[in-house]
Amino acid sequence: MPVNLVPTRAEDLLPVKGVALGVAEAGIKKAKRRDLLVMRLAEGASVAGVFTQNRFCAAPVILCREQFAGGKPARALVVNTGNANAGTGEDGLGRARKSCSELAALLACDSSQILPFSTGVIMEPLPVERIVAALPRALADCREDNWANAAEAIMTTDTVPKACSRQLTLGGKTVTVTGMAKGAGMIHPGMATMLGFVATDAAVSQVALQHMLAEATARSFNRITVDGDTSTNDSFILIATGAAGAQKITDERHPDYARLAAAVGEVAVWLAQAIIRDGEGATKFITVEVQGGKSEEECGKVAYAIAHSPLVKTAFFASDPNLGRLLCAIGYAGIPDLDVGRVKLYLGDVLVATEGGRNPAYREEDGQRVMQQSEITVRVELARGAAQTTVWTCDLSHDYVSINADYRS
Amino acid sequence: MPVNLVPTRAEDLLPVKGVALGVAEAGIKKAKRRDLLVMRLAEGASVAGVFTQNRFCAAPVILCREQFAGGKPARALVVNTGNANAGTGEDGLGRARKSCSELAALLACDSSQILPFSTGVIMEPLPVERIVAALPRALADCREDNWANAAEAIMTTDTVPKACSRQLTLGGKTVTVTGMAKGAGMIHPGMATMLGFVATDAAVSQVALQHMLAEATARSFNRITVDGDTSTNDSFILIATGAAGAQKITDERHPDYARLAAAVGEVAVWLAQAIIRDGEGATKFITVEVQGGKSEEECGKVAYAIAHSPLVKTAFFASDPNLGRLLCAIGYAGIPDLDVGRVKLYLGDVLVATEGGRNPAYREEDGQRVMQQSEITVRVELARGAAQTTVWTCDLSHDYVSINADYRS
Repeated sequence: MPVNLVPTRAEDLLPVKGVALGVAEAGIKKAKRRDLLVMRLAEGASVAGVFTQNRFCAAPVILCREQFAGGKPARALVVNTGNANAGTGEDGLGRARKSCSELAALLACDSSQILPFSTGVIMEPLPVERIVAALPRALADCREDNWANAAEAIMTTDTVPKACSRQLTLGGKTVTVTGMAKGAGMIHPGMATMLGFVATDAAVSQVALQHMLAEATARSFNRITVDGDTSTNDSFILIATGAAGAQKITDERHPDYARLAAAVGEVAVWLAQAIIRDGEGATKFITVEVQGGKSEEECGKVAYAIAHSPLVKTAFFASDPNLGRLLCAIGYAGIPDLDVGRVKLYLGDVLVATEGGRNPAYREEDGQRVMQQSEITVRVELARGAAQTTVWTCDLSHDYVSINADYRS
Repeated sequence: MPVNLVPTRAEDLLPVKGVALGVAEAGIKKAKRRDLLVMRLAEGASVAGVFTQNRFCAAPVILCREQFAGGKPARALVVNTGNANAGTGEDGLGRARKSCSELAALLACDSSQILPFSTGVIMEPLPVERIVAALPRALADCREDNWANAAEAIMTTDTVPKACSRQLTLGGKTVTVTGMAKGAGMIHPGMATMLGFVATDAAVSQVALQHMLAEATARSFNRITVDGDTSTNDSFILIATGAAGAQKITDERHPDYARLAAAVGEVAVWLAQAIIRDGEGATKFITVEVQGGKSEEECGKVAYAIAHSPLVKTAFFASDPNLGRLLCAIGYAGIPDLDVGRVKLYLGDVLVATEGGRNPAYREEDGQRVMQQSEITVRVELARGAAQTTVWTCDLSHDYVSINADYRS
């Protein structure tokens, strides 16, 4: 059960003019499962993308990078679940190219105008013939009010579809931002096992859109961790169709940039947090705030030392205020000149540790009270500078082990 | 149940001349548990130590470092389980000092000649009065053939005591090396949550002994990981009493140095591997060998990316050859210019991946056969240099979560 995550109702997912979505059952891993998604983009849409840094990146990631570098405007995205097409070498590249060329033929565009995405098991050959066979059905299903089915089609170990919408007015025109994402495990900063697609019918130049995407990623998908594993397939795509008729945002100094960027950021943060709330086996949603660092980088080291520690995460699962494990993680985070005598550790509103040890006024029942909540904030004050950062994670439960031990079966 | 770890029988733990060990029930955390150990050293013994790099290091670690810096020869070690005396600030230092001064009074030596060690729960005040009250009983119990009881007294979540002995002849004199260690979770390179004590009755100068200790640590305790957490209390101590009457080893060019160092290294590797075999919840012992790197450091990055990955570790637990997770970990290990097309991945004797993807000759049943073994070797060939490294780890099971969720209760 995801932690305090109420899936957005289908009727609250707002269509984005110029983006039509269609799903189909391709039978990639399981029968009778809609596992194929096509997103058609209106002519003139801008597309921006960020991708995994994993050296064993998946074949579709390689193709997406090629196609971004090639420069022809994208006309469609093709997404499958059930198979990651990663760790598949030259053969995998060939199969990814095949799905692009077949879809391009159906759409009468160039193969380089198709962006492919895959998620699922690694190192198995992609059953591309099944994808090709299902493409016409996915195309026939394409419509703008189909985000709910699309969000469901891209799920793997996710227990609920993740999607949300925002609307704003730019120069008198109503503009919509709708996004969806999948991911539940293999979630790490530097991107999660995750696919994310956010679209708006605002008009944004490719350069400004890429900038907006980078900003949104930095404060959303790059701030979450479930298990510290960086996947081979992570991709986050931002699309701007321009179909709402608002004035084009040409660069980040444009007067409308900040408001649109805020809405895109909200959608991205909602999706990133939804991934953590639905983290494999998660029973708690943990916010780790680190303040008073010399740099954002060192704040991140401390935040991730806490967020990655299996000992800390099992203590959260057990609702056990075994807070020494938090101090321990701060201590090994890799700040060699950290003065532990100045560090303050808060659990929720409770000052737990100060002056290198337990706060004399700390009472176990106060820690216990916070630990029993399903939303917990850990705050660390380093008292050595003005930088800060926030990351989100979940606890480590029996179900994480069960889900990942049984994943392929 | 530890993985293929047969505890050494008490009669096979050989006394080291000049080291007397005594245990007592101090009631630190639980009643009727021998939780206090005193080791008395013959006059003239050399002692070397390495300690955790955690900035929140425990009070006893701070005192040990002070006492090594102070230079007066150590006459005794005092070790307690049940409480780590870490994250306890100035008050914790006072309590550690108290246990040293009380033992020093009983032994008529200086307080700075006592080395203290603690292991157990973090951020709780050390019940030092109980330790002080039990010291006379521990001293009364001191004898050279007491290693088995000593190894049991230092356990925390360990399921079996860990100790072993080696003997060799140096210049016609029989020399003994006996060691013990504790640790099962919070185990990480850069030292484990672990206390290790190895003693020999060979004669070794302090400088040569420290060198021998550093070498042994690098190939034993610094090559293991259970959960990636670096503890506040890690300490590894090497003692040389000189009581066997062999010629003194003055430096590492001495003809006897290499043979003694080899025996010490064997004991340290045995203990380090025993810690992994008894890793919290472990059902498999995993050796990760990385070869063909440009440097030992980059080999270590790949080895630890594999050894720390919860996804890899749960796949081992499930005996599931979900080998894409191994490729994925190699890919995010942090070698930016890694040519994945040249990487080879072996599971036991089975070539799993080559040329960026699955070996065409690989068959699932071959991977399955290796995965079902309780001792598994993963071998990665990077094909970019001549460096190599080996690390040892275990799988991640339901019991790891149970043990760490319930630890304090």
